[in-house]
Amino acid sequence: MAERLRAAVVGGSGYVGGELIRLLLRHPHVELAAVTSRRHAGRPLPKALPHLRGATELKFTAPDDLSTYDAMFLALPHGESMNAIDDVAARADYLIDLSSDFRLRDPDLFESYYGNAHPRPELLEAFVYGLPELHREELTSAQRVAVPGCTATAAILPLAPIVEAFDVQLIVVDAKVGSSASGASVSAASHHPERTGVVRPFKPTGHRHTAEMIQELDHEGTASIHFSPHAVELVRGIASTAHVFIEDDVTEKAIWKTYRATYGDEPFVRFVKERSGLYRYPEPKLVEGTNVCDIGFERDERTGRLVVMSAIDNLTKGAAGQAVQCLNLMAGFDERDGLDAVGLYPV
Amino acid sequence: MAERLRAAVVGGSGYVGGELIRLLLRHPHVELAAVTSRRHAGRPLPKALPHLRGATELKFTAPDDLSTYDAMFLALPHGESMNAIDDVAARADYLIDLSSDFRLRDPDLFESYYGNAHPRPELLEAFVYGLPELHREELTSAQRVAVPGCTATAAILPLAPIVEAFDVQLIVVDAKVGSSASGASVSAASHHPERTGVVRPFKPTGHRHTAEMIQELDHEGTASIHFSPHAVELVRGIASTAHVFIEDDVTEKAIWKTYRATYGDEPFVRFVKERSGLYRYPEPKLVEGTNVCDIGFERDERTGRLVVMSAIDNLTKGAAGQAVQCLNLMAGFDERDGLDAVGLYPV
Amino acid sequence: MAERLRAAVVGGSGYVGGELIRLLLRHPHVELAAVTSRRHAGRPLPKALPHLRGATELKFTAPDDLSTYDAMFLALPHGESMNAIDDVAARADYLIDLSSDFRLRDPDLFESYYGNAHPRPELLEAFVYGLPELHREELTSAQRVAVPGCTATAAILPLAPIVEAFDVQLIVVDAKVGSSASGASVSAASHHPERTGVVRPFKPTGHRHTAEMIQELDHEGTASIHFSPHAVELVRGIASTAHVFIEDDVTEKAIWKTYRATYGDEPFVRFVKERSGLYRYPEPKLVEGTNVCDIGFERDERTGRLVVMSAIDNLTKGAAGQAVQCLNLMAGFDERDGLDAVGLYPV
Amino acid sequence: MAERLRAAVVGGSGYVGGELIRLLLRHPHVELAAVTSRRHAGRPLPKALPHLRGATELKFTAPDDLSTYDAMFLALPHGESMNAIDDVAARADYLIDLSSDFRLRDPDLFESYYGNAHPRPELLEAFVYGLPELHREELTSAQRVAVPGCTATAAILPLAPIVEAFDVQLIVVDAKVGSSASGASVSAASHHPERTGVVRPFKPTGHRHTAEMIQELDHEGTASIHFSPHAVELVRGIASTAHVFIEDDVTEKAIWKTYRATYGDEPFVRFVKERSGLYRYPEPKLVEGTNVCDIGFERDERTGRLVVMSAIDNLTKGAAGQAVQCLNLMAGFDERDGLDAVGLYPV
Repeated sequence: MAERLRAAVVGGSGYVGGELIRLLLRHPHVELAAVTSRRHAGRPLPKALPHLRGATELKFTAPDDLSTYDAMFLALPHGESMNAIDDVAARADYLIDLSSDFRLRDPDLFESYYGNAHPRPELLEAFVYGLPELHREELTSAQRVAVPGCTATAAILPLAPIVEAFDVQLIVVDAKVGSSASGASVSAASHHPERTGVVRPFKPTGHRHTAEMIQELDHEGTASIHFSPHAVELVRGIASTAHVFIEDDVTEKAIWKTYRATYGDEPFVRFVKERSGLYRYPEPKLVEGTNVCDIGFERDERTGRLVVMSAIDNLTKGAAGQAVQCLNLMAGFDERDGLDAVGLYPV
Repeated sequence: MAERLRAAVVGGSGYVGGELIRLLLRHPHVELAAVTSRRHAGRPLPKALPHLRGATELKFTAPDDLSTYDAMFLALPHGESMNAIDDVAARADYLIDLSSDFRLRDPDLFESYYGNAHPRPELLEAFVYGLPELHREELTSAQRVAVPGCTATAAILPLAPIVEAFDVQLIVVDAKVGSSASGASVSAASHHPERTGVVRPFKPTGHRHTAEMIQELDHEGTASIHFSPHAVELVRGIASTAHVFIEDDVTEKAIWKTYRATYGDEPFVRFVKERSGLYRYPEPKLVEGTNVCDIGFERDERTGRLVVMSAIDNLTKGAAGQAVQCLNLMAGFDERDGLDAVGLYPV
Repeated sequence: MAERLRAAVVGGSGYVGGELIRLLLRHPHVELAAVTSRRHAGRPLPKALPHLRGATELKFTAPDDLSTYDAMFLALPHGESMNAIDDVAARADYLIDLSSDFRLRDPDLFESYYGNAHPRPELLEAFVYGLPELHREELTSAQRVAVPGCTATAAILPLAPIVEAFDVQLIVVDAKVGSSASGASVSAASHHPERTGVVRPFKPTGHRHTAEMIQELDHEGTASIHFSPHAVELVRGIASTAHVFIEDDVTEKAIWKTYRATYGDEPFVRFVKERSGLYRYPEPKLVEGTNVCDIGFERDERTGRLVVMSAIDNLTKGAAGQAVQCLNLMAGFDERDGLDAVGLYPV
Repeated sequence: MAERLRAAVVGGSGYVGGELIRLLLRHPHVELAAVTSRRHAGRPLPKALPHLRGATELKFTAPDDLSTYDAMFLALPHGESMNAIDDVAARADYLIDLSSDFRLRDPDLFESYYGNAHPRPELLEAFVYGLPELHREELTSAQRVAVPGCTATAAILPLAPIVEAFDVQLIVVDAKVGSSASGASVSAASHHPERTGVVRPFKPTGHRHTAEMIQELDHEGTASIHFSPHAVELVRGIASTAHVFIEDDVTEKAIWKTYRATYGDEPFVRFVKERSGLYRYPEPKLVEGTNVCDIGFERDERTGRLVVMSAIDNLTKGAAGQAVQCLNLMAGFDERDGLDAVGLYPV
């Protein structure tokens, strides 16, 4: 095998960082060279990330001890990438940010949903929105990528072809999300007796990922996008149900045709629409640990409403896996490299 | 205490039957006189219903051994109440059917959603739709009651005042449902490794309970009601999220006012809308084993969409508890009798 | 109804406090007069205890505002009852402590398992160990009671008759415990993604409840008691499996006879030993929210080992329910008062 | 890459079959040539095994259409391998049976635990017990392998070095097992509302896997082995807690030394014994989907009891992964081939 690309993960002791490391350690063309953690600097990775026992000898590095790398992944809390960016940008050819700091091109949209003016609006243009299925061309020549939010990925992927092909008037996205999406930091809301078995609407209106959906799906403001996520009893996984109202009558056949034309060759999109069996529609547990987005749909014969369902693993296709997929495009690797795991079943 | 009303449960070995017996055994004015089960006739109740160990000496009776009673509850599979009705009707003053057989007043609506003509349309008029918050008057003089479907209850209760007060144009009800709603019969879909941790859309369009929502919420056909239920990781419980689009702009204050005017004195409706804390909106696990329907809402400042959330226990307020509440009204008891349990926490 | 006994709960905002309040609010002879919480003083109870919405108008009281009461329950963290005792003791006829501070009669045993000398050894004699099935006589005349630990209750109850009747040589108690037993305080170990789905041995040797088992089961030091608890995926509940090795050969019939003689009339002990069905042995979810301890057993035909299984709800029979049962005995009420709930099924 | 070994899976539509296929599809030296299923013959694999969507074009073959292969895996229900063996044996160089039919060398031990005389005792000698850590030598030259039972693997692996090194007198193995271990066939015991949240002792005495433990750990009958498995809320995973009583006093240091000497170079054994952190002992969810067996221990300072803990994935190291590991040895591949997955975290 030829030389490997040297990669570093900045802020690697959280859940997204842990998933990224898991993927990079098995990537055929990547050498994981450094993982930083202010809190765990000097300790072996498995001390914070127990799944890595036996998989690596690497220790956490202090952020100040960073060198230069071919690729750097920022898995920092939202708001911290903005601060780290100047220092980090000079250290790597490929910079992949997993926070929400650089996802929106429009500073006004950012301010509307994040509540404060973006402190570095001049940088926004430099970042490509890292959703390969929609931005593959740009990604192949990108040097800076902002990986989409997890619920944004789960909503945008199945809806983009529909919005493009039909005259969509109204979309309600009702998402169901696992607890790992809230991160590794302890909170009352994630205390096991409180979090177990909930169906908890955690931001019924005004969720920040709505802004990404608007950017990617409704740039002209003709559709009307509504989003409500719910915490459910899952650790990993997002199930997204989009209720779509289209001006004209659209047949299931036409929708099939649209999806096949758009995503027929996508390596990480599967269509799930079965007439029988237990898994007739997308199901998050079947994509756990994989980079796949399953998409299904059903048209309401009585009303014309289109129900579009999707499932991803929030840490993989919703974060770390998508980041690796972006790197594969940026670096000219096979897009599937390091991402070919078959899902577990049953689970 | 005065004389107790003698009650029988027909088809009492399933989950709804078991919940009904649990409630009736602690009801101050009811004596549980008989529980029938074709399969378990002659065996003590706890053989099929293990929670009743030590709570009753009663044995299952064969259906053919029924006598006459003051009240009879039919907890038969859907479609079987129709067959049993003639025999049973003569045996009791109060007849409370928990199946879907007599819920719809319009035979055409029945046929549209159930796929076959109603075999006994002449009986439909005699049944009152057993949702006390909407039909209390009728229930106090009723002799036959059809208890609403569980997801119908969870949707209709929070939406009825809104539909009544405002010019609602479109409603999308996205429900999350526990596994007990599918009953005690074994199936591949309920096999633990397959059912655990799912977010499974089980009837994204055309679910039968939609017909009840149309009957109770949209008798004039001016609104447009859409319903998609999902199986989630719960045994008991339904969380219902209704996305409501109203013609005119409506303030949260106006909604509060409407709810308070309609349900301010209801014994089993609680409003849950907190600015802080973990349980800011309705949560099914907090109503487990109770007859309460929690209702909350939030208006989207950006778009005007109204999100209405509700939570019930599908076996209690969604079936057996509601049935007892109906009996209390029919028999002139305090509506809260036998239904005053405080929910468990944490759970 | 005659006058009610006025009760206060000190430290009532945690899980044990919340369960106690749930039970006391429905107790026929108790009036809940005060609940203290330093943190929540002045706020309505449901702000911290959401299951109490609609069930009480009471607000939390500051500890310093306590008056005198007929009965006081201390639901303070372990170690704090010792500090509060002098102040509290003068305020109530009946004092029921739910902490571990006064459970052990032998200060040396305390020091061995708690790691420090007991600061108030002179008080230990005044407390009765609040396990009614073993100490009913003492409890009827007691004024101070120390409620047993939850895993201690689950182990001692099924084992006491065996130890009494047979020449037991070795006991291994392997317990499986729900997350509510760790309390309401947030911790990394209880963070949902970390705690969900675990089978986590949390103190394989040296757990403090072992001392209570020794006190109640092996006062003469002839048996040998070993205890290992495991955190499992449950919120409420303890399943305890005791592997018992007896010197002489003992038949199942002899064990049955022993259990029936000892516990045949106990209101909160059920024997669960079925030849068929799904619930052949004790199961914690069937006792959720109840004060019942289910007991079952099986003798290994090949080796003579006796497997004794039990199940309780850690917050009810393992804490708050047992406390109420103790009060009922102390105050001369029916032992079942306020504790007659039938368990939920399915759940 | 050189030529691949052609493999077939007989009875491949169940959970063990599905896991085997998942592993074989990513094995660098294996070509999955056929998967049989009487029920699903002619249908694409994902129709029964939804995790394989997009991963293979293979269809199920009828058992009668089998050809010859380099390796055959039998994933048939217990009792059926015996019937299939004559037909199958001639078709493959390497035969790996995952049922319990050929695990025991002693027909009397088989009869004692299985209740009937072994119908083909003459075949028992030809099979090697497929636990590579204990039988690696034999496996490298084996042609027929019987893969151990899942709970047997979880118990034998951590205990074998202890039994070998010390004078063990008594072992109690208390196991906690996920629902996938009961297979894909529907049953009342696995109905979701009944199975969820249980701690169900499913065979407190006399479980068949005990026979394997006796064979591998106590061939001379000097120790005394006791086993009780419990169904807990898990889909995949076994946590095994062995309470070990040793004649002489043994230090933790001596145990460490023994383990390191025996398993220090094992590719699939990890030692988990941390002084701090959340995962101080083995935890099944951390080995989900991997072939690893995590082992930890703690000596009770007060009593000398040794607590030995282990965790495996019942479908991987407890079945399909172990089968592949055996094949790797039989065929001279690197033992890690196809088995190098890093576990998921959190999960």
